[in-house]
Amino acid sequence: VKIDVFFTPAGVSQPDVQGRSVVVIDVLRATTTIAVALHNGARAVVPAGSTEEALRIAQNLERDDVLLAGERRSTRIPGFALGNSPHEFSSDAVRGKTIVLTTTNGTPALIAAQGAREVIVAAAVNFGAVIERCRGILEERGELMILCAGRERQFALEDSFAAGRLTKVLLPEGGLRKVQVNDGALASLELARHYGERWLRAFRASSHGQALVELGFGADLRLCAEENTHMILPLYADRRITTNRSTNQG
Amino acid sequence: VKIDVFFTPAGVSQPDVQGRSVVVIDVLRATTTIAVALHNGARAVVPAGSTEEALRIAQNLERDDVLLAGERRSTRIPGFALGNSPHEFSSDAVRGKTIVLTTTNGTPALIAAQGAREVIVAAAVNFGAVIERCRGILEERGELMILCAGRERQFALEDSFAAGRLTKVLLPEGGLRKVQVNDGALASLELARHYGERWLRAFRASSHGQALVELGFGADLRLCAEENTHMILPLYADRRITTNRSTNQG
Repeated sequence: VKIDVFFTPAGVSQPDVQGRSVVVIDVLRATTTIAVALHNGARAVVPAGSTEEALRIAQNLERDDVLLAGERRSTRIPGFALGNSPHEFSSDAVRGKTIVLTTTNGTPALIAAQGAREVIVAAAVNFGAVIERCRGILEERGELMILCAGRERQFALEDSFAAGRLTKVLLPEGGLRKVQVNDGALASLELARHYGERWLRAFRASSHGQALVELGFGADLRLCAEENTHMILPLYADRRITTNRSTNQG
Repeated sequence: VKIDVFFTPAGVSQPDVQGRSVVVIDVLRATTTIAVALHNGARAVVPAGSTEEALRIAQNLERDDVLLAGERRSTRIPGFALGNSPHEFSSDAVRGKTIVLTTTNGTPALIAAQGAREVIVAAAVNFGAVIERCRGILEERGELMILCAGRERQFALEDSFAAGRLTKVLLPEGGLRKVQVNDGALASLELARHYGERWLRAFRASSHGQALVELGFGADLRLCAEENTHMILPLYADRRITTNRSTNQG
């Protein structure tokens, strides 16, 4: 069994992800927001690399079915219907909609994972569903890659802690002796040892979490820190993030 | 007091280092090798970004005074006098010489630090000298940046542990309450807590350390893991690394 953790998409290229199963984590806030949106009935979330690309994608969809969403410097892009706060993605706001989303760190990480065999969108709110699928992947294929979004191409504590918490839960009995891990996984496990299940404590220690609190998004931290409130498995394929359920619906 | 740790030079650009004091760490093996070379009487070490650049720099120096050194995939570049093993940089080999050095990770990190106010080359072998200078910097200027070389633009356990060990030693009484640290520093402190002073244990856990052992460089790991065997403070300025001593000599 092999688990690799990467702290940012910088330096991760197509050959690194090809044929692999990749878990993408941007727990503050894009992957949380995506899980919440799909849980609340959004049809799909389409990641866009830039504001311009988001507009272009939206123009090719039915006007009534699409919502533009995203942030720059943590606040809503002017003119977009939604920002990147999971609180905005209520059932009333998103049911039946396709959401075109562009964020500073989360969407670049998702785009870096394109070309992987399978891309799982992970957060605390859907942690149990992610664990279940990852256990299946490790049984079937024996290896998993966890890709943190990080923050502006740098290490971010909140995502790395989340990666460590996931790695820790996935370790087989016998722990590290029974599994091959990269340096990133080893370091993330130390964060998991330190913070345990205390997501909120890790968020509050992180510079990104502190910046969000200063901008008035303290409630987002609390929502993003709760495990298993939105038990859904968002998968990214063919440039769209959907759940198994909505995929089956067509 | 402010201490920032960056795990790779990827994403670190000129404005990030400008005006700052930067400690560069590539403990396996470039910064160890540089400290050993200068301790053993080399006049200077000149980092080069590529084999071609190394040759070009060497051609502008007196033939008898210059040695080409460096590695690709951990082994000596064909035709170069020296590789990147600190064991090769004996007094007999390097005394009075200017060494033009190109390595996979260490020299890119040094080059990324160009333009900083002061660049300190750090390893275990000169750890005490680095600590002393960093304490002076924190007193004078209140902030310090620690830049890990990492491995092929990714996180490397050995450098991040070293950064954490340095950060831990530099924390003022009162610890984290009295200092502002970035997410990288927080994570590196967890590694320092885990490995303590056991450099060799961290090296052996790292994928780079394991690769070096497989290539027959196990003795390098032991040399690189010993603190304060080569107490010297190499500084990188005007594209050359020299010690205070040799700078004073002109």
